[in-house]
Amino acid sequence: MHDAVAIDADRFRERFESYSEFGATDDDGLHRLALSGADREARDRFVADIQAAGLDVRVDELGNVFGRYPGRNPDAAPVLVGSHLDSQPYGGRYDGQLGVLTALEAVQTIAESDVEPDRPLEVVNWTNEEGTRFQPSMMGSSGYVGFEDVDYLLAATDRDGAVVADELERIGYDGDEPCEPPEAGVHSYLELHVEQGPTLDDRDLPVAVVDGVYGMSWLRVTVEGQADHAGPTPMHARQDALAAATDAISEINRLPGRLSEDAVATVGEVSVEPNSINVIPARATFTVDLRSYDDDVVDCGVERIEAEVAAACDRHGVEAAVDRVSRHHSMAFSDRVRAAADRAIEATGVEATHLVSGAGHDAQHLQTLTDAGMLFVPSVDGRTHSEAEFTEWADCVAGARVFANATLELATE
Amino acid sequence: MHDAVAIDADRFRERFESYSEFGATDDDGLHRLALSGADREARDRFVADIQAAGLDVRVDELGNVFGRYPGRNPDAAPVLVGSHLDSQPYGGRYDGQLGVLTALEAVQTIAESDVEPDRPLEVVNWTNEEGTRFQPSMMGSSGYVGFEDVDYLLAATDRDGAVVADELERIGYDGDEPCEPPEAGVHSYLELHVEQGPTLDDRDLPVAVVDGVYGMSWLRVTVEGQADHAGPTPMHARQDALAAATDAISEINRLPGRLSEDAVATVGEVSVEPNSINVIPARATFTVDLRSYDDDVVDCGVERIEAEVAAACDRHGVEAAVDRVSRHHSMAFSDRVRAAADRAIEATGVEATHLVSGAGHDAQHLQTLTDAGMLFVPSVDGRTHSEAEFTEWADCVAGARVFANATLELATE
Repeated sequence: MHDAVAIDADRFRERFESYSEFGATDDDGLHRLALSGADREARDRFVADIQAAGLDVRVDELGNVFGRYPGRNPDAAPVLVGSHLDSQPYGGRYDGQLGVLTALEAVQTIAESDVEPDRPLEVVNWTNEEGTRFQPSMMGSSGYVGFEDVDYLLAATDRDGAVVADELERIGYDGDEPCEPPEAGVHSYLELHVEQGPTLDDRDLPVAVVDGVYGMSWLRVTVEGQADHAGPTPMHARQDALAAATDAISEINRLPGRLSEDAVATVGEVSVEPNSINVIPARATFTVDLRSYDDDVVDCGVERIEAEVAAACDRHGVEAAVDRVSRHHSMAFSDRVRAAADRAIEATGVEATHLVSGAGHDAQHLQTLTDAGMLFVPSVDGRTHSEAEFTEWADCVAGARVFANATLELATE
Repeated sequence: MHDAVAIDADRFRERFESYSEFGATDDDGLHRLALSGADREARDRFVADIQAAGLDVRVDELGNVFGRYPGRNPDAAPVLVGSHLDSQPYGGRYDGQLGVLTALEAVQTIAESDVEPDRPLEVVNWTNEEGTRFQPSMMGSSGYVGFEDVDYLLAATDRDGAVVADELERIGYDGDEPCEPPEAGVHSYLELHVEQGPTLDDRDLPVAVVDGVYGMSWLRVTVEGQADHAGPTPMHARQDALAAATDAISEINRLPGRLSEDAVATVGEVSVEPNSINVIPARATFTVDLRSYDDDVVDCGVERIEAEVAAACDRHGVEAAVDRVSRHHSMAFSDRVRAAADRAIEATGVEATHLVSGAGHDAQHLQTLTDAGMLFVPSVDGRTHSEAEFTEWADCVAGARVFANATLELATE
């Protein structure tokens, strides 16, 4: 077996190291918030690389950057490949950036090869996937598929009041093109990303085909008790909002083990009022993030959490309200794209498995528009959204080899 | 049986209503932070009332205000009576203020009566008992007894950087007198306060003699885990700092029932980092306030809390540090002062009991200097540090009758 196309591993690595300078932190991570100066530097380099590869550059009104290779039939619907160049605050080098550079390497490899694809190839950098500076996250792909109105997204502001539209203009990425798919549509979408969990690392495998994305529910729980003096108030006379909340949180942490093999539950935010060392808490609020690939598990879990909160409040003589903040249903990626990835894995001889993603990605939005799919490479120890994020370079190369061949499969189907 | 001296109940009530205007909140509470404009208004009225009662006014360098009645022997050590006029933020009308006005009424009643006490009487308003604006709390009495250095207390700042010394000058209470006891010493100290717990209200009794104050330990616990993505990280692969903290907090809330009849434990402050809905908490910190009248119970409880924190951290694969922030030992008030209070109770025919205080008071500091004691009147439903704080007026009057007679007992012993 041999690769139908073989990437330039040296060029790929040189690019990864160079791009990692834009917004580099002292601890080998990236601090490259969307539409920041560091984001501009990375984008400028990306545009230069696209042009040097002989591709046509296009920037849309949301700042999404496309590089196009026309293929045998320039009017056909293109195969779209990419990810995002923005990072988490003091995040890692691999989340997003690796996917953009893998896609660029794949398109450039095919463009330089003897194999002429039937349809156009487009590499894309989506604006503001992380959503830590501007909400919502996955902004560029959201506007592109029409999930959110582009004008609404352009008006989003950060904590300091800076507006997306102004920041795009400031960094020179307020493009002329409308933020929408081409008239011919999009044939398919493929994205490579780090797993952000420990499974591939645990199994010592370099690549996974992603079958779908977990369903998810976000809850916000507010427990109302009564503030009293921590000294003279006997235990039996208390209405301690935090005591009820901690009882409920302990049960929520035990819940996934009772629900399914794959379920996860996280309490990530807690706040207490008045938050004083010698005052019994009058109010405690906390969030819950509950996920499973089985939407019935998510729905059942939400009901059990509501029941656990009610039981804890009964025990402590306090009241609670559970607000269902958001609910995203699980989704499956395209059979066609997954099959193309499987063929590429066979062609390259790379060891691989199939996984489901616990995290959300731009590819989810693309699946609402076309046939979409993803590849994962390992996150060592599952570390992510951290400067400690790491993937062995051999695994990045294996992923890029599979990715280039899967892209070619899709473009010549 | 009849009172040896009888207070002027109408004057007492008129004063309580008038003083309650200074810093009044919309919900019948008080927002009268130490050294604020509202505190100045209350102090100005207090000085005017002292003068109108024919007493000599003295203001010391920490802003403590004294009103002196010379008695038969002006050079003898005085009986000191009082409390504090500052309030909690959006606190109640009774905490502190009732004690100052009861003391003023007692001294004025004795001064106006036919009974001439053997020794001088002094009524006092201690600066900044609450400690919510400037730390430490019980500032005025702390400086007076020499527990803290006066210059250190004068240099304390609030969150906005305002300095005690400057604020005293701004409101005109940077007195000329040194902050110290008179040369002759202090014969005894008596303070009336609301109970701030539910016991008297539960037993339907108007007055308690306070036998002592609980011992107390304050702890600050910091749990260190690892931030990871809430989606792709399986439950078994997590190092969730908050999950360990909530396990420990649940056990801490159960601990008092295993320690003693009187023990209380409160977790009042919690903070989480990074405090994001979809990130597993990397760090959780919380405080513990543990009290009992038995210091062995407090010491044993601290050890058990440390063991529970360690066990919870072991279960969750995280680390914790327990910082012993402060430790106050339990203390007993003077037998002599308690006996004087008991005689006053018998003389007035008021129903009463004996209690131990779960809260700290200026009287604790005074006990280190002289024979000190306290009387409690009820807090309806135990509510305190809240605008909902309430005491039936008949109970305030009963408390003031006992207080005036106990003061006279001390001054004529």
